[in-house]
Amino acid sequence: MTTFFRISAIVLMAGLLAMTAAKPTRVVFFGDSITQAGVNPGGYIDRLKKMLPSDQFELIGAGIGGNKIYDLYLRMEEDVLAKQPDVVVVWVGVNDVWHKSSYGTGTDPDKFVKFYEAVVKKLQAANARVILCTPAAIGEKTDFTNQQDGDLNLYSQLIRDLAARRNLPLVDLRKAVLEYNLKSNPENKDRGILTTDRVHLNEAGNQFVAEQMQKVLTTVVATK
Amino acid sequence: MTTFFRISAIVLMAGLLAMTAAKPTRVVFFGDSITQAGVNPGGYIDRLKKMLPSDQFELIGAGIGGNKIYDLYLRMEEDVLAKQPDVVVVWVGVNDVWHKSSYGTGTDPDKFVKFYEAVVKKLQAANARVILCTPAAIGEKTDFTNQQDGDLNLYSQLIRDLAARRNLPLVDLRKAVLEYNLKSNPENKDRGILTTDRVHLNEAGNQFVAEQMQKVLTTVVATK
Amino acid sequence: MTTFFRISAIVLMAGLLAMTAAKPTRVVFFGDSITQAGVNPGGYIDRLKKMLPSDQFELIGAGIGGNKIYDLYLRMEEDVLAKQPDVVVVWVGVNDVWHKSSYGTGTDPDKFVKFYEAVVKKLQAANARVILCTPAAIGEKTDFTNQQDGDLNLYSQLIRDLAARRNLPLVDLRKAVLEYNLKSNPENKDRGILTTDRVHLNEAGNQFVAEQMQKVLTTVVATK
Amino acid sequence: MTTFFRISAIVLMAGLLAMTAAKPTRVVFFGDSITQAGVNPGGYIDRLKKMLPSDQFELIGAGIGGNKIYDLYLRMEEDVLAKQPDVVVVWVGVNDVWHKSSYGTGTDPDKFVKFYEAVVKKLQAANARVILCTPAAIGEKTDFTNQQDGDLNLYSQLIRDLAARRNLPLVDLRKAVLEYNLKSNPENKDRGILTTDRVHLNEAGNQFVAEQMQKVLTTVVATK
Repeated sequence: MTTFFRISAIVLMAGLLAMTAAKPTRVVFFGDSITQAGVNPGGYIDRLKKMLPSDQFELIGAGIGGNKIYDLYLRMEEDVLAKQPDVVVVWVGVNDVWHKSSYGTGTDPDKFVKFYEAVVKKLQAANARVILCTPAAIGEKTDFTNQQDGDLNLYSQLIRDLAARRNLPLVDLRKAVLEYNLKSNPENKDRGILTTDRVHLNEAGNQFVAEQMQKVLTTVVATK
Repeated sequence: MTTFFRISAIVLMAGLLAMTAAKPTRVVFFGDSITQAGVNPGGYIDRLKKMLPSDQFELIGAGIGGNKIYDLYLRMEEDVLAKQPDVVVVWVGVNDVWHKSSYGTGTDPDKFVKFYEAVVKKLQAANARVILCTPAAIGEKTDFTNQQDGDLNLYSQLIRDLAARRNLPLVDLRKAVLEYNLKSNPENKDRGILTTDRVHLNEAGNQFVAEQMQKVLTTVVATK
Repeated sequence: MTTFFRISAIVLMAGLLAMTAAKPTRVVFFGDSITQAGVNPGGYIDRLKKMLPSDQFELIGAGIGGNKIYDLYLRMEEDVLAKQPDVVVVWVGVNDVWHKSSYGTGTDPDKFVKFYEAVVKKLQAANARVILCTPAAIGEKTDFTNQQDGDLNLYSQLIRDLAARRNLPLVDLRKAVLEYNLKSNPENKDRGILTTDRVHLNEAGNQFVAEQMQKVLTTVVATK
Repeated sequence: MTTFFRISAIVLMAGLLAMTAAKPTRVVFFGDSITQAGVNPGGYIDRLKKMLPSDQFELIGAGIGGNKIYDLYLRMEEDVLAKQPDVVVVWVGVNDVWHKSSYGTGTDPDKFVKFYEAVVKKLQAANARVILCTPAAIGEKTDFTNQQDGDLNLYSQLIRDLAARRNLPLVDLRKAVLEYNLKSNPENKDRGILTTDRVHLNEAGNQFVAEQMQKVLTTVVATK
């Protein structure tokens, strides 16, 4: 092989490598109505798109209103695995708790864990890296008088335990939102700080969640 | 081949066939507390053991108290498929409805169907024949004033539709128990005819359910 | 007494009787959101105003959305007794049943009867004639697969029993609406026949209820 | 009047006063199953009988299992006012919250306050002094992961607000039990510290409640 060809080959390979390196990390956000709204202009996924380098990240929303953990389980092949994600951010739990009182069809805590485990296993089997999130709030009052606080605290703890058990990165939104409200909600209001209606994110809420997610996403990708 | 060998071969094959035929059909009863109690002396499975020829049927109970359809789904590999059943009788639904009001963790009707479909598919993929049953009762009153009558009627209809859609045999216990009560419960009592406590079977109830199951099991095996 | 005075006296008495007769019967409709909407143009109370002679009937709406029997009890002095009604039509029950699954705050059947009895007693103590109504529907399907059918049938029966026990006129809307739907809802739809949304009356529903009420109101006033 | 008669009169009056003073304060404990069990040997009312001077206090239990605030309202005339109490200790709230998830028939927070106000007014109209209590616990975990913690905190706050608004003495058992558990329940157990089953008092619990009640009762009677 001539020097010319050798150099050409190296250049070509370098180019291919660069192209490979340039392939952005595909992140699917897998969740409920909060995530469904996250892709709207100003939504947390929309903001993340501007906050993260677009050549490094491809962000895809996969949120459906009313979803509980077993809804995610039932639709994960079509809605997530079919997209061959590198990273899946699972954010669920509000409806598992809320639907207890609003429909009588919430999720038992032990089944919540079982289906969450099953979701994580299937994602990992498809070589996706999994990031867990805790459910932020149903009501922003800081004195634990929101009706579902007991359950949200419990289910968040179950998610933290699962993350620890499987050594998975965690965006602890329950903790972060409470800390934010302890500073920014001196009147103990139930909405209007980070949410519009006790659950869904307002502008500040979308920004806040985007920032929390950004930190973990950057770390996860850096340690790939 | 000599005649001797030909005859020997035929005899041998016939013997093998006979042995095969002699292997009893293994039936797993997959359900909730009603089925869990069914294996007790006098329970409906215990009665079926006496009603069906033991050389033709091997009956195994796989009922766990409080189970909903997605509990069956979560434990089916260990508790049912591991036993390599020829036939699986699925009888579930009472808790999917009842837990709405007693724990806030009942099952949405559409998810009930999705998980039921998933259970049926997995059983069929393992070459088991599947028999469906409708949930009998939460309360035996015949004028549709039992609190869960609306939902039990709905979920029973969903099971009937599933059986029709997939051409599966059905033991329509909801229908059979109502018809029985219309004749035998003139005082419109909520318990004591076929149940001890509105849900769980008394002696007459276990006998009644065993008879309903016997008919379908015999037909299913005959048409194998 | 002279003839002149005799005639004068007769004229005077006739005049007084006429004045008495001319005072219209004041009817207060005491209920929930269905009654709250009943005073709107086209609502059942609005229709009744046109169907009943205005010199004989004064119709007043006292419906508040979300009300259960104990809400009626708590506000009856201000909202009903203060208006010194001749007749009170009590129409409640949908939320006592519905709020079980939508908020976890429905009314136990025995407390439903106790508060209903207390409402009736207080109205009668204020010399009002009381007409009872059964709750019509949460869902118009006719095969008793509407989720709350069991409870609606039960609470309707409790109201029928109360009416019988206290010899009170009854507008049995539960029965009437079911009979209407058995004829007019061959597709077993859950809404759109007499309701817009399974509960609240559409045009046909308001007309139907107005007609049912008209019959009983006319009879009650005639037998005063 | 002679000196003799003057002295006699004074002695007589002193005697009458003494007799008056000697009439013990009649205290009725008005509540749910916790209070129903409170009169049993070792129960908190039984303990209070030994802790308070029997010539100064007559203690009467009026607790019925499953009672919510409106059950107290419905039975207060027969069960409390008929006993002409000097003091009524109202302790209710657990079932108002708990029955949301276990029967779908809990009490809305605003109705809880309305019926509580109505109970207090009727008791005061009968010249009884009223002492309020907050509901202690449904689960003894201290990290606010007991399912009903949000509601129990809310309803307790509503009772505190009512006590403040009407200047009524309060036994803040919710606060006291939480503080006790923060010290004595390092393993974050849900039962076994002051309760047998997350709700009903064990020996230590009955003693603890008796001590909390004793303080307030003694003060209330001293300031009569």
